[in-house]
Amino acid sequence: MESTRNEEISSFFDSAPPLKNRDNIKHKLNEFIRLNSSPNGGDEEKARRIVCVTSGGTTVPLEQRCVRYIDNFSSGHRGAASTEYLLKAGYAVIFLYRRGTFQPFCRSLPDDPFLECFESIDPKNIQVRQQHSEAVKLAIRDHHTAVAGGLLLKLPFTTIFEYLQMLQMTALSLSSLGPHAMFYLAAAVSDFYVPWKSMAEHKIQSGSGHLDIRLVQVPKLLSVLRKEWAPMAFCISFKLETDSRILQEKAEMALRKYGMHVVVANELLTRKEEVFVVTGNLKITVHRDKTQVDSDVENPLIELLVNRHSVYMKESDT
Amino acid sequence: MESTRNEEISSFFDSAPPLKNRDNIKHKLNEFIRLNSSPNGGDEEKARRIVCVTSGGTTVPLEQRCVRYIDNFSSGHRGAASTEYLLKAGYAVIFLYRRGTFQPFCRSLPDDPFLECFESIDPKNIQVRQQHSEAVKLAIRDHHTAVAGGLLLKLPFTTIFEYLQMLQMTALSLSSLGPHAMFYLAAAVSDFYVPWKSMAEHKIQSGSGHLDIRLVQVPKLLSVLRKEWAPMAFCISFKLETDSRILQEKAEMALRKYGMHVVVANELLTRKEEVFVVTGNLKITVHRDKTQVDSDVENPLIELLVNRHSVYMKESDT
Repeated sequence: MESTRNEEISSFFDSAPPLKNRDNIKHKLNEFIRLNSSPNGGDEEKARRIVCVTSGGTTVPLEQRCVRYIDNFSSGHRGAASTEYLLKAGYAVIFLYRRGTFQPFCRSLPDDPFLECFESIDPKNIQVRQQHSEAVKLAIRDHHTAVAGGLLLKLPFTTIFEYLQMLQMTALSLSSLGPHAMFYLAAAVSDFYVPWKSMAEHKIQSGSGHLDIRLVQVPKLLSVLRKEWAPMAFCISFKLETDSRILQEKAEMALRKYGMHVVVANELLTRKEEVFVVTGNLKITVHRDKTQVDSDVENPLIELLVNRHSVYMKESDT
Repeated sequence: MESTRNEEISSFFDSAPPLKNRDNIKHKLNEFIRLNSSPNGGDEEKARRIVCVTSGGTTVPLEQRCVRYIDNFSSGHRGAASTEYLLKAGYAVIFLYRRGTFQPFCRSLPDDPFLECFESIDPKNIQVRQQHSEAVKLAIRDHHTAVAGGLLLKLPFTTIFEYLQMLQMTALSLSSLGPHAMFYLAAAVSDFYVPWKSMAEHKIQSGSGHLDIRLVQVPKLLSVLRKEWAPMAFCISFKLETDSRILQEKAEMALRKYGMHVVVANELLTRKEEVFVVTGNLKITVHRDKTQVDSDVENPLIELLVNRHSVYMKESDT
C-alpha cells in the first residue's frame, strides 16, 4: 500500500514538466522566510508566524502543447479574503494563487476593475469613478503596503504540475519554522490528471464523433506534506462538495486519512454563509455575522483558526 | 446526413441550460444594431458596417453544478487586437468575449493592470506608475470612447452553451444588415461537450482510481450560421493547429465544408508572427511588419479582410 503510494508520487513528479523560474521562486521563498522568521535579529520567541495560503483552482492539461485542459472552478475569493484576515492577525503570508483569480484587498471591486473603476476626463487625464473611489484607494493602498512591507509574497500557478511543485518547495522551506508555520490549503486542486508522458503532443483531432478521455488520480500529497515535507506545521485543508449528505463524512475522513489538524468543510451553494470546522473530535459551525451587511465567513473562521494554531504551538513547546 | 445534422443541432440547443439575461442581451443587440445601421436617419447607403468579433475560449462543464470543466486555451489577444483595428476602419463591433480575457486597447498593459499600474502615494491618493502612465491613459481613453460612443458592445460568455446561444441571437439580429454584416469568429470554441442531461448533477467522486469521460462532438454551427442565421453576412473563421503539416489542409476543408468566405489558419507557436488567409482559390500569407517593434499581425490582417469585405459588398449589390 505504502509502496504503491510512493510509486504514484514519484511517477507524478517524474512525469511533471519542470517548473520554470524554479531557482527564482526558491530564492524569493527563502528570503521571505528568512526576513519574517527573524525580524529582531534572530530572536526566535518573537518570530512572526508564516502561513502558506493556496487559492484558486488548478488546471490539468489534456495536450502537451496545451490548447485544451480540465479546470477546477474556484474564484479564489476564500483564499484572498482569508489572506487579508491572516495579515491583520500578524501572519506573514505566502499567497500561492491561480493566475487571474481574486487578489487580497480587491474583493469589493467590480469584475474588471481596470476598465470599470477609471474614466478619462480629458485626453491627458484619468480619474477614479466616484462610486468606486474608496474601494479603489483602499485596495491599492492595503495591497501595496502588504507587498512592499515584505509581509505578502505572491506566487502564481496555473497547472496542477506547477501547483504541486511550488507547494512542495514552500513546505520544504517552511519546515524550518516548525509549529510556527501554517498551511491553509484553500485551492481547488484537481483530483485527476493525464500523466504528461501519455498526453497527446498535438491538439486532439475531432472527427470521429466522440472523444474518450481517461484520467488517473492525482496522488494525495496532503499526507506527504504532513509526514515528510513539513511535519511540524499546522495544517488546514478544505473539502468542497455539492452534495451536503456526504460532506461531513468526507471531511472527517480527510482529517484522519491525511493527518490534517483541521478540515474546513463547505457546500458549493452555502459556502459564503457558513462552513463546518472539523478538528480532533470537535465539529464547529462557523457562519458570517448576518447582522452586518458586509460581513463574511472568513472573518470568524480565521479568528478560530488562529486560536487553534496558538494552542497547537503551545502544545508543541511542552 | 442532413437530418442527422439537424437532430444534433436541436439536441444541443434543447439540452442547453437557458441563457440568463436573454431579454436584456437581445435588447442591447437590437439597440446597437438599430443605432449603427441608420446613423443618418435611415440612409442605408451610409449605414455603418457591423462586425461580430468572437474572442477567447469556451468551457464545457463536466458537472451540472459546475466544479470541473474543460477549457479551451485562448488569451483573447487576437480578438481584442482585431477589434481595435476594425473600430479604426469604421466598423461598429459586437465583441462577444470570454470573461477574463484580453480587452480591446488593453494589450500593452501588464497581466493584472489594476494592481500593477497604480500606486498609493499617501492614504488618500493613488497615482499611475510612471512606466505605465501612457499605456494606462490610452487604454482607458480609447476603450471608454468606443463604448460610450456606441461603437463597441461587449457581451461576455463562459460556457459553450452561452456562447452558441449568444452567437445565434447576434446572427439572427445582424441578418437584417445583409452583406453589411461581418462575422470574425476568432473564439476558440470547444469541439466536444457533455450533453447537459447526461451530466452528473453532483461533483464527480474520486476514489475508484481513474475517471473516464466520454464527450460528444459539438454540432458544427458554422454552416447553420451561413445558411440559416445570417445567409448574406461575410464570414471569417479561424483554424488553429499545433501541427503545421495538417493546418492548410484543414483550413481549406473548413472553407468548403462550412461555406466560409475566408478561413484564417494559424499555428500555435507562430500565431503572433504570421497567419495564412485562405479565400476562394487564394492562399495569402500575412505577417507582421518586422521592421517595427510594436507591430502585430492583426494590423495587416484586418486591412486585407476589410478590403475583401468591400469587394464582397460590391459583388452582392450587383
